[in-house]
Amino acid sequence: MPSTEFQLIDHYFSHLGINRADVLLGIGDDCALLQVPEGQSLAVSIDTLVEGVHFLADVDPESLGHKALAVNLSDLAAMGADPAWVTLALTLPKVDEVWLAAFCRGFSALANRYHVQLVGGDTTRGPLALSVQAHGFVEPAVALRRDTAKPGDLIYVSGTLGDAGLALLVNSGAYDAGDGRAALQLRLDRPEPRVSLAQRLRDLATGAIDISDGLLADLGHICERSGVGAVVNLPDIPLSDPVRAYVETERDWSIPLKAGDDYELCLIVPAQYRGEVESRAADLDVGLTLIGQIEEGEAICCLDQQGAPVKIGSGGYDHFQSS
Amino acid sequence: MPSTEFQLIDHYFSHLGINRADVLLGIGDDCALLQVPEGQSLAVSIDTLVEGVHFLADVDPESLGHKALAVNLSDLAAMGADPAWVTLALTLPKVDEVWLAAFCRGFSALANRYHVQLVGGDTTRGPLALSVQAHGFVEPAVALRRDTAKPGDLIYVSGTLGDAGLALLVNSGAYDAGDGRAALQLRLDRPEPRVSLAQRLRDLATGAIDISDGLLADLGHICERSGVGAVVNLPDIPLSDPVRAYVETERDWSIPLKAGDDYELCLIVPAQYRGEVESRAADLDVGLTLIGQIEEGEAICCLDQQGAPVKIGSGGYDHFQSS
Repeated sequence: MPSTEFQLIDHYFSHLGINRADVLLGIGDDCALLQVPEGQSLAVSIDTLVEGVHFLADVDPESLGHKALAVNLSDLAAMGADPAWVTLALTLPKVDEVWLAAFCRGFSALANRYHVQLVGGDTTRGPLALSVQAHGFVEPAVALRRDTAKPGDLIYVSGTLGDAGLALLVNSGAYDAGDGRAALQLRLDRPEPRVSLAQRLRDLATGAIDISDGLLADLGHICERSGVGAVVNLPDIPLSDPVRAYVETERDWSIPLKAGDDYELCLIVPAQYRGEVESRAADLDVGLTLIGQIEEGEAICCLDQQGAPVKIGSGGYDHFQSS
Repeated sequence: MPSTEFQLIDHYFSHLGINRADVLLGIGDDCALLQVPEGQSLAVSIDTLVEGVHFLADVDPESLGHKALAVNLSDLAAMGADPAWVTLALTLPKVDEVWLAAFCRGFSALANRYHVQLVGGDTTRGPLALSVQAHGFVEPAVALRRDTAKPGDLIYVSGTLGDAGLALLVNSGAYDAGDGRAALQLRLDRPEPRVSLAQRLRDLATGAIDISDGLLADLGHICERSGVGAVVNLPDIPLSDPVRAYVETERDWSIPLKAGDDYELCLIVPAQYRGEVESRAADLDVGLTLIGQIEEGEAICCLDQQGAPVKIGSGGYDHFQSS
């Protein structure tokens, strides 16, 4: 791109977000120079969003700016880390000032809320895509890993599950959610990283993952890495009204269990901390629900109201059937 | 992509590179957990390479793997930082095992040489592009910044300038370099990050930049950030034989001065360290050449053999003319 176009982009990004004291040198040199607090480890996560794969060409740029950062802050939350710095590699087919301004609005509103500073970036011409890398801190002893779950541990999830997946189904025209549509769309477009919840519980919880691929897939990652199985009680899964209506009318659990994009947390908590965890979570503005527990074995078993195992289909939208 | 394809990619990347003791948790969790040594700051750089912009579709994948990492290690070198960790966001139109294996060969050979560990990645389907982010350490007091140059400081460059630019010109069919072609192509495809040179000189040099956009543009970044000007003596610019032949026959300095992609270092050194810097550099396997000095003002003035200013054209391939 001509340097004037780059200067335009620089203008947007150099004015984006707050200034942190631990940034010794921000945008404008060969590298950023950053200070990690003593006793803390650095947590690093990277996610790429590509047009046509993760979003459509007509995506609302403000929502895209929010979501590109949110999915990375969600990874930091799933590690129990405090967000600090972020870099952005942005590939754009052309320079569109209105689009860029809206993208930066969405990105910086979320960055400011979590006191995150943009410390580096690279803008190139090409098919629309973005890679965001987020950096945070966590004491190694309280980091929420995937490989620490033990039989008897409790499984909690934050918020409600299936809202983003149902929004996608509604957008495809396959389901009519009536008045619920706007709320579902907001959950798909503007996921809220559960940073505060993770910070509040990280000294009690031992493990966590953020639900980006669906509860069963993501809980499955914990089970696989920890060498354990799990029992999930379907009636306990927290559902919003539109998703509850969908599950009841369509008799289909795939949306809350297998659709991703909710970016809620699945937390693993030793049973003795149940009271303390639930009392701390009560102070926060997001729900925390006990949905099952870790068991010996390697399978995830879903139980219905009567405690009977529910057979789980293999496809993304397969209907579940009682066995 | 189907999970089997992802598993294939995971296979390649999880076996890539060495294991460092400061990686508490590598690939496979929500974040990597990393330990920055006490007293050191974290240096972070990100670069994106996009097909059709930075390389052609028929690029040799092993060279691409090398170059994607090399340009980021070059940014760390330009900061005087010790390379440590890297993340890779890779977008691929399809999974091609032969291509992937070659890419990983080029990437990991360079990573191993600099003791760099791949700690995170994200693979998505889409138009071929890669973002590499490199992390290193440097004591803040010896970091080589762009904003510290002072009048009287000496300007050094490593290696030779213009080789990569002349390779591009040869590839376009506009120039015949004869026997020199293979060596030029190697310089374009396999740039060597000047990490050791920067480590050896960082306590004496005060500033540096890597030459990715051409000497005049990159030295210009130092001048702009430091509020100074510079004098460059053209006869002192280090040139390989093919570039010297080109400059002499074509009477065109634009290739060594304005073409980028060499990834040599431009270093700023206070005059009192001249002897010590040149004596240390003599032990290394890359040349270091004094080409000019920082001055008051804001312009970069190029001088010919007779010490007369040379007028510099504005276009990328504009020929320079004596004024």
